[in-house]
Amino acid sequence: MGRERSGRFLAEGAQAVREALRYGQVHEVFVTATAAARNAEIVAEATQRDIPVSTVTDRAADGLSETVTPQGIVAVCEQLDVALEDALKQPRLVAVLVGVSDPGNAGTVTRVADSAGASAVIFAGDTVDPHNGKCVRASTGSVFHLPLARSRDTMAVFDACRAAGLRLVAADGHAETDLTTADLSRPTAWVFGSEAHGLAPEFLAAVDEVVKVPIYGKAESLNLATAAAVCLYANRLR
Amino acid sequence: MGRERSGRFLAEGAQAVREALRYGQVHEVFVTATAAARNAEIVAEATQRDIPVSTVTDRAADGLSETVTPQGIVAVCEQLDVALEDALKQPRLVAVLVGVSDPGNAGTVTRVADSAGASAVIFAGDTVDPHNGKCVRASTGSVFHLPLARSRDTMAVFDACRAAGLRLVAADGHAETDLTTADLSRPTAWVFGSEAHGLAPEFLAAVDEVVKVPIYGKAESLNLATAAAVCLYANRLR
Repeated sequence: MGRERSGRFLAEGAQAVREALRYGQVHEVFVTATAAARNAEIVAEATQRDIPVSTVTDRAADGLSETVTPQGIVAVCEQLDVALEDALKQPRLVAVLVGVSDPGNAGTVTRVADSAGASAVIFAGDTVDPHNGKCVRASTGSVFHLPLARSRDTMAVFDACRAAGLRLVAADGHAETDLTTADLSRPTAWVFGSEAHGLAPEFLAAVDEVVKVPIYGKAESLNLATAAAVCLYANRLR
Repeated sequence: MGRERSGRFLAEGAQAVREALRYGQVHEVFVTATAAARNAEIVAEATQRDIPVSTVTDRAADGLSETVTPQGIVAVCEQLDVALEDALKQPRLVAVLVGVSDPGNAGTVTRVADSAGASAVIFAGDTVDPHNGKCVRASTGSVFHLPLARSRDTMAVFDACRAAGLRLVAADGHAETDLTTADLSRPTAWVFGSEAHGLAPEFLAAVDEVVKVPIYGKAESLNLATAAAVCLYANRLR
């Protein structure tokens, strides 16, 4: 999978193509004869909706793939991200990724946000492109399930979240406030930094509250996805 | 890293060696000249405690390593697992992995269990060996932090947990009971199956309660580590 100049991107593999057909906007499907036999219901669904399906050789499918073991089925999809203000309409719960460069982490957090009922995920600063193949795969389809927006300007994202009525709560392992006592009574934008570097001081200073997931044992920290899971589900478990 | 017949195993990389020295039982350290310079405090700590430190060539270190990018530092450690009854002394919160074959998942869940204050992690059925190098790495040292036990006999593990006063609660995406209404008032043994296959019906039938992490969005499920994070932290967040 990869981002194309046209504003389209390739979603690869049966699961991604299935979710793209159900929730995304698919322009075309390329499939090998073998994969078409294995995924007859996907081909039928595309055909029924007048989406062009082209049978390609294994070699052509390999050329479209960025994985080591191509699944032989690829969808050309309309890009996923929407304008920031569109992603933040009547927000309940939002995840903001700031400088998350690992696509697997970004995709897994998107899956967690989807599961927890978030209304959007914002890819801020130099966070990886949500159309990155590894991000799409790690999300197991969630990139197609909820609005995604991107902005290089993290402070502008914070401003837009506040304007939409969200309280900004950052997760940081060194915070003094514990998640268990955090104020989550209002719609919350959870802000997550990269696993390697966390959030820069300017961003920690700009949010409404900084909280840590409490560590009760001897571990130094949780990884990004598991910390995000505890944060995004916290309000549901109270 | 790998399991050896002697009941010793190799912990590889600066972080694992540091945690092994602090919490495990280290018999010997092998280090390249470069890695010794980069990790002077680890070498000093081992030397101070009369643990033999041998300088080895890069080639020898590569031979001891199972990673693509060896860090040049390896500790020969005493095996981690203890007897089941020893792991289950006065248990508060326990994680039981049943048939978790992916070492990265097993290690990450061990890290989450450590973070959530679990008193032990049990590797049951055909779950991966906790000494597996990928498991040790994914745990970021947590395999050294809390008692680990192994048993091929999952039913015997369940019996031992009950005898120790634990209530067995299994996580399963298809459960009818929601985590938010689960009875977590007593010390709990959380039972997790593999990401690919979940828990076999016989094990679901043998526990006291089966609950699901509620999905509020369009995702099908959470991955094992993030689901375990929500479960193991649930009682802390109430």
